[in-house]
Amino acid sequence: MARHDSNADPAWRWEEHRWRGAIEKIRAGRSLHPVRWKDGARVCVALSFDSDHETSTLGHGSMSPGPLSQGQYGARAAIPRILALLRRHDIRASFFVPAVVALLHPDEQRRLVDEGHEVAMHGWIHEMPGQLTETVERDLMRRAYETLAKIAGRRPVGVRVPAWDFSPTTVGLIRELGLLYDSSLMADDEPYELLEDGEPTGIVELPVEWIKDDAPYFVRNRAPATVLDIFKAEFEGAVAEGGLFLLTMHPHIIGHRSRITLLAELIEHIKRVDGVWFATHEEVARYCLAHG
Amino acid sequence: MARHDSNADPAWRWEEHRWRGAIEKIRAGRSLHPVRWKDGARVCVALSFDSDHETSTLGHGSMSPGPLSQGQYGARAAIPRILALLRRHDIRASFFVPAVVALLHPDEQRRLVDEGHEVAMHGWIHEMPGQLTETVERDLMRRAYETLAKIAGRRPVGVRVPAWDFSPTTVGLIRELGLLYDSSLMADDEPYELLEDGEPTGIVELPVEWIKDDAPYFVRNRAPATVLDIFKAEFEGAVAEGGLFLLTMHPHIIGHRSRITLLAELIEHIKRVDGVWFATHEEVARYCLAHG
Amino acid sequence: MARHDSNADPAWRWEEHRWRGAIEKIRAGRSLHPVRWKDGARVCVALSFDSDHETSTLGHGSMSPGPLSQGQYGARAAIPRILALLRRHDIRASFFVPAVVALLHPDEQRRLVDEGHEVAMHGWIHEMPGQLTETVERDLMRRAYETLAKIAGRRPVGVRVPAWDFSPTTVGLIRELGLLYDSSLMADDEPYELLEDGEPTGIVELPVEWIKDDAPYFVRNRAPATVLDIFKAEFEGAVAEGGLFLLTMHPHIIGHRSRITLLAELIEHIKRVDGVWFATHEEVARYCLAHG
Amino acid sequence: MARHDSNADPAWRWEEHRWRGAIEKIRAGRSLHPVRWKDGARVCVALSFDSDHETSTLGHGSMSPGPLSQGQYGARAAIPRILALLRRHDIRASFFVPAVVALLHPDEQRRLVDEGHEVAMHGWIHEMPGQLTETVERDLMRRAYETLAKIAGRRPVGVRVPAWDFSPTTVGLIRELGLLYDSSLMADDEPYELLEDGEPTGIVELPVEWIKDDAPYFVRNRAPATVLDIFKAEFEGAVAEGGLFLLTMHPHIIGHRSRITLLAELIEHIKRVDGVWFATHEEVARYCLAHG
Repeated sequence: MARHDSNADPAWRWEEHRWRGAIEKIRAGRSLHPVRWKDGARVCVALSFDSDHETSTLGHGSMSPGPLSQGQYGARAAIPRILALLRRHDIRASFFVPAVVALLHPDEQRRLVDEGHEVAMHGWIHEMPGQLTETVERDLMRRAYETLAKIAGRRPVGVRVPAWDFSPTTVGLIRELGLLYDSSLMADDEPYELLEDGEPTGIVELPVEWIKDDAPYFVRNRAPATVLDIFKAEFEGAVAEGGLFLLTMHPHIIGHRSRITLLAELIEHIKRVDGVWFATHEEVARYCLAHG
Repeated sequence: MARHDSNADPAWRWEEHRWRGAIEKIRAGRSLHPVRWKDGARVCVALSFDSDHETSTLGHGSMSPGPLSQGQYGARAAIPRILALLRRHDIRASFFVPAVVALLHPDEQRRLVDEGHEVAMHGWIHEMPGQLTETVERDLMRRAYETLAKIAGRRPVGVRVPAWDFSPTTVGLIRELGLLYDSSLMADDEPYELLEDGEPTGIVELPVEWIKDDAPYFVRNRAPATVLDIFKAEFEGAVAEGGLFLLTMHPHIIGHRSRITLLAELIEHIKRVDGVWFATHEEVARYCLAHG
Repeated sequence: MARHDSNADPAWRWEEHRWRGAIEKIRAGRSLHPVRWKDGARVCVALSFDSDHETSTLGHGSMSPGPLSQGQYGARAAIPRILALLRRHDIRASFFVPAVVALLHPDEQRRLVDEGHEVAMHGWIHEMPGQLTETVERDLMRRAYETLAKIAGRRPVGVRVPAWDFSPTTVGLIRELGLLYDSSLMADDEPYELLEDGEPTGIVELPVEWIKDDAPYFVRNRAPATVLDIFKAEFEGAVAEGGLFLLTMHPHIIGHRSRITLLAELIEHIKRVDGVWFATHEEVARYCLAHG
Repeated sequence: MARHDSNADPAWRWEEHRWRGAIEKIRAGRSLHPVRWKDGARVCVALSFDSDHETSTLGHGSMSPGPLSQGQYGARAAIPRILALLRRHDIRASFFVPAVVALLHPDEQRRLVDEGHEVAMHGWIHEMPGQLTETVERDLMRRAYETLAKIAGRRPVGVRVPAWDFSPTTVGLIRELGLLYDSSLMADDEPYELLEDGEPTGIVELPVEWIKDDAPYFVRNRAPATVLDIFKAEFEGAVAEGGLFLLTMHPHIIGHRSRITLLAELIEHIKRVDGVWFATHEEVARYCLAHG
């Protein structure tokens, strides 16, 4: 699929049906924000880790040993630290895993499942779906689905699109696979139902945001003190609104010695609040679909 | 309009009439800084929100669902939080709205007007005026003017050019539409009259600055503590000089849980000072034209 | 002068005479760090302002009204604030002024001289000397020299090359004009004599550094608290080494309400130390040449 | 070696043997993390300085006097400050020196050796190995090896690849030269043995990370307070895990007045902990090979 050439076809020339069609292709529908969370909890906290590991390099077609070693750090040094922290706090989280990472590190995925965590879809090799034809996107999603099901011993029920690069055809493929939820879009803080061309799809969206992601801060700015303040403020906002605090992290980013302490501090901060429900993305999606 | 090729035609080759002509095309004229503000206030505070929503994506010719959902957040999650905050503090503000946003969210614009806020012009689809011919720029400005007038039920009296990309022909089109003010240029902290080719135009400029804009901090740096300090320092400077503190924000940027608290803190900080006049841009422009 | 194509002619292929010749073309010679500063001062503080104003836009061949208005802010709003601050503290500083800025704002330059400040060279229209032929560079430097001499009523004795883009031919042109000093290079914290092809030139270099410049912080990062800490630490280092603290600023950058207070705080911090000599660049260069 | 064109040959098309081969070409093997450090120390601290000096400019094929003077600062102003600090604290460190820097500053290298520091390899002229053919990479590594041996009076036993741009052929050349260790890859915090195509090589990897490097913070962000916090947190993590804290710095970056104080504070912070072993990279590599 060729990229749009905005010089040859500038948006101010588009007829109304065209920009309206673009808007309505995929859009937020009814809110699934439940009146109260499970067992009367005031706020829901869903921690997720995108285990990109070596595919953050391979996905760009690079085979350079240096960046690949940075990815291997995710599996070798970071995942053990993350699991130790989650175990210490008795928290279950969701791990979004590209199929190639599952093939390179199958024991890691089995260990995640054994410890009660969710393993969900995150593309084949961290490709960019928005640059693929629908045929290729379908083929990669199906192979990713089957690979994860086989290695993790359980069919995935959710997906986070690599680089959050949701394509206009992604939602149709999610429906073909019968998935419960997506977690790649950003139209709200609270869960909502996805609309396709204005029609309800039954798919739960668990929205993400760059604000609630470790990568933009650490890859560019490297400012841990500020990051902790922002994550706490987002959590406080979720408490005030009785809502969801969903956080995206990456093992090879958050798993370093100077950063895992930030996640530890955040969890301790959250635990000081009464009425917190820590849940996997799957649990949140099922609960919201039933009570939203 | 082709972009200037600075290699083929470097500025050091230009004759004096050429660089002088460029300088004088649009320039700051007499100051409209009033001796005192309305009812004897010491300082004037003008809050504005550029409601780009989905046009921050469409304007670049992109139809990608992810960035579009980030824009939809502005309408769905951010505007309600902003209106609640303004209502709580009994403040009227100005909203600069691209015509396509008004067409996509007409109820939002009517609600703004109902709550006493100003709805003003912000282009057709967040296009870049500096890249348009005068004919296209005129056509888009007229359609934007008529669209806003129809949806908001009141003719707009001011404009903020999308991306502050004021073209050499913009001022002529502002005069054709009979607008009161522009708020896109940066030659002063205080209101001034625009000169065109050295001649007074009668148009009030309410100057902006990237320093007093949420976007450069949050899109790039994401450092809320620092931003609040800078905004407070700009406000203190305005108090010290008996001047104007004009702030530009964007719903889809400032409206997040971890950022709306920053605006709340800023407003509380401002309210601790005696003699503050909170005004819409229209009110400021009318007052300065009469008393500047 | 075409830019070097590092793919066609990579540096690892160069013979020794070539990389050694590049190194020795312009290089730091003997230190001119005096044993003590004037009247026994412990430390020397040289404040400078590069008055780029509108040429920071024109120099790139742009005539866009928005960026030009940002430059006009330097002359209209910032210079008065800077002069008021320097007057309050009885400090003389150096202003590096492109010739086109002097032609656009002749009264400003005369006022600087009247208040005891130095007006020195800063190119014709803020062009990049490293991209010019020697003939063009010579012509622009001569016209800039004559323009400044005529408007300021006094021949300039020093130069800061625009964008610090010192070319291999710049030093020869400085000698042709008989200038006392340059302030564009970075080989030391203390003044030194420039060598050309290994030979002493008699020209004083007053070194600069991006660390001691307002632009990299405010154009990109906008983090004033940190900047003040860094500037103070550089000053403390100069005190500890009995050296020079030379600071580069830009009126249209430092002159904003939230930033001029930073300069005010820095000056107050410096004045708390005993034995500070505030000097113009010319005074520093003359003193170091006599006592270095 | 041409760069990979990821559009013509996207990674999602690769067969398993291809991405698996890329991963296994160079990979982390068995951990060499010793049960305890020398003389029962709890933690090992290895400080290193990449003395790029003028080659940080020459390496890109640039001969611009300004950037070259910034490099000369490393030799002229920074190295003396760094050596004074290390001497005051009786610490031996490792300096990674491009051969061209050794040829330009031979006395500096001899002084390093005289004061007990290690001088190790860092390329010929700070070229990018990943862009070279194997033949060129071999020739430059051999010449660099011989140049350092001759000037420093001792054969180097380790290498840090310029820009950490480890190529698929680098490990073979390290074996040809019989080096003890590399310090350019990032798969762990603790030393490990390098695997080539899955086979142990006997080469010790002393891993680096951008987190523990001065350049990303100061070249981009210039935020010293934060940097000190991050370095301290990395050190605390090493203490907690009984591991290695390896820090990469650059004289022309860390050696400025406002930054050398950061290194001084860090060293004082580290020295407050009991059981710290400060070691050169060579000492760490030999110890880990014997006890890891």
